Amino acid sequence: MRQSLASRNLRWLFTLLLILPLLVRAQEPLPSWKDGPSRQAIEAFVSAVTKEGGKDYVPPAERIAVFDNDGTLWSEQPMYFEVLFALDEVKRLAPQHPEWKEQQPFKAVLEGDQKALAESGTEGLMKIIGATHSGMSTEQFIEQSQGWLAKAVHPRSKKPYTEMVYQPMLELLAYLRANGFRTYIVSGGEVAFMRAFAEEVYGIPPEQVIGTTFESQFQDKDGQLSIQRLPKLAHNDDGPGKPVSIDTIIGRRPIFAFGNSDGDLQMLQWTMAGNGKRFAGLVHHTDATREWAYDRESKIGRLDKALDAAKAGNWTVVDMAGEWSRVYPFENN
Amino acid sequence: MRQSLASRNLRWLFTLLLILPLLVRAQEPLPSWKDGPSRQAIEAFVSAVTKEGGKDYVPPAERIAVFDNDGTLWSEQPMYFEVLFALDEVKRLAPQHPEWKEQQPFKAVLEGDQKALAESGTEGLMKIIGATHSGMSTEQFIEQSQGWLAKAVHPRSKKPYTEMVYQPMLELLAYLRANGFRTYIVSGGEVAFMRAFAEEVYGIPPEQVIGTTFESQFQDKDGQLSIQRLPKLAHNDDGPGKPVSIDTIIGRRPIFAFGNSDGDLQMLQWTMAGNGKRFAGLVHHTDATREWAYDRESKIGRLDKALDAAKAGNWTVVDMAGEWSRVYPFENN
Repeated sequence: MRQSLASRNLRWLFTLLLILPLLVRAQEPLPSWKDGPSRQAIEAFVSAVTKEGGKDYVPPAERIAVFDNDGTLWSEQPMYFEVLFALDEVKRLAPQHPEWKEQQPFKAVLEGDQKALAESGTEGLMKIIGATHSGMSTEQFIEQSQGWLAKAVHPRSKKPYTEMVYQPMLELLAYLRANGFRTYIVSGGEVAFMRAFAEEVYGIPPEQVIGTTFESQFQDKDGQLSIQRLPKLAHNDDGPGKPVSIDTIIGRRPIFAFGNSDGDLQMLQWTMAGNGKRFAGLVHHTDATREWAYDRESKIGRLDKALDAAKAGNWTVVDMAGEWSRVYPFENN
Repeated sequence: MRQSLASRNLRWLFTLLLILPLLVRAQEPLPSWKDGPSRQAIEAFVSAVTKEGGKDYVPPAERIAVFDNDGTLWSEQPMYFEVLFALDEVKRLAPQHPEWKEQQPFKAVLEGDQKALAESGTEGLMKIIGATHSGMSTEQFIEQSQGWLAKAVHPRSKKPYTEMVYQPMLELLAYLRANGFRTYIVSGGEVAFMRAFAEEVYGIPPEQVIGTTFESQFQDKDGQLSIQRLPKLAHNDDGPGKPVSIDTIIGRRPIFAFGNSDGDLQMLQWTMAGNGKRFAGLVHHTDATREWAYDRESKIGRLDKALDAAKAGNWTVVDMAGEWSRVYPFENN
């Protein structure tokens, strides 16, 4: 008799364990993704690689997912947000640099001279990035970045930049992590700038943020230790630099990658060229109303070669206008 | 009646859950550490930072432990094992490099001319490392390293190098991981060489191995993608290079660090200079019988300034001869 009651008890427990996944599934993991080809492709992939005993099963340790940041996790128009940060920093730091009044491209920034700024080109931009991203410790730089992010607002939406993130991608990150993936950022953004908000905004911890880096050095100043940032680029984490940093820092090939521009092409190719089931996705900016519409002709986030590669390779191309029921978290749904 | 039996059942389950930690504790986590000052310091530290609600509590995400490799996790005498690998590689690769017969330091290696090899100094060594560590893909290099590790034996013990690891340190790694730490290698060894065995031997996955790196580039050769290793040092992960790579790659300051030589000094200082409770440890090679005895005067793994710093800072210095009941896993205990 006692035995029987005990086993009835256990049966109740087992039933609970059996229906638990169903209860969890009832809560839709990707609510801002319409039931279109992209959501179906994501769910089919995750289901295949997590099914124990299935032919496509991948153990959790190898479930590495990599994401570009600008244009993939948050917006990048009218200009990369980190460049807008650097321009504001030039203004903040100007009193300490009286020589900037006469020196391009700094003069152009201080005078709001868009034409001269544009003429300074990539070289000018790198001078601005170098001057605003070095000459301090990593801790100080992160503090400065966080200070800016807390106050600055986007010129169009008037929202903080950390709210200009894509709700569907936040859901995708959470969905992958709930399925045993580790989510990494692999982006052209500077690594410490991204670490300033990635954990709070994306749930991505510092050690899973990979980006462009500057040289730095260990400093012991009368027993005060710090890592000092130098004005020399160490690694440009864009294009072919992405698979290189993945290989150097992660040491494993991802099985899932998401980008939005030609700067992500090699990362997507590298991900797809491994053995077994793999996923490559592109955010296609097709939504001029809620976000922006741009691709092959854009100066920011040009998507041309990677779009051809996606079509040829049958990768997932997300039609933002058609497949996302919501773009930003602050939108009314 | 049924209720009462059910609750008796539950009580049994609860009792099991309550005694489980005791059963686990009964299995001593650091059996090869004698009950001396080092083991006590380690256990006191782990107990303090893992006690929820305690004043020294550290959340699991911040429990980063970093370990040097050569002389800390495995032996480094009579020469760093990776250098012995490089010397063997020169012999293996010689048929493809007829010019080496007349070119130092390669000539010295091929002729077994120890004097000429020693005279070639650090510059000669870097040539040997460069020639044997580049010119192939990362995958090929790891394969080659694994092939060597599978066959080569240590000149004194005649054991594979992967058995020349310290049993007490294997136990320490497992103990920390069981307490929610993530264990990293931060070592002067080349990163891919260490990844060739770190997961199997230490349980440390590729993304938690940080080391010296060479420049590399993404290659697309008729659709065959690879990361090709170049003969140019990118980062020397020794001395002040260690806190720099920790800052760049992990982006968090460790709370626990273990080394054995002056090359670990800055990593230990950086770890200790953070806020809250911290641990710095040194393996002191005091055991000429079971391992080797060397410190201030040694060319390999010199421990001089770091030993002074340890004394001044009250760090944990492990007396290998006195505190480890077993050095290698293959020893009879």
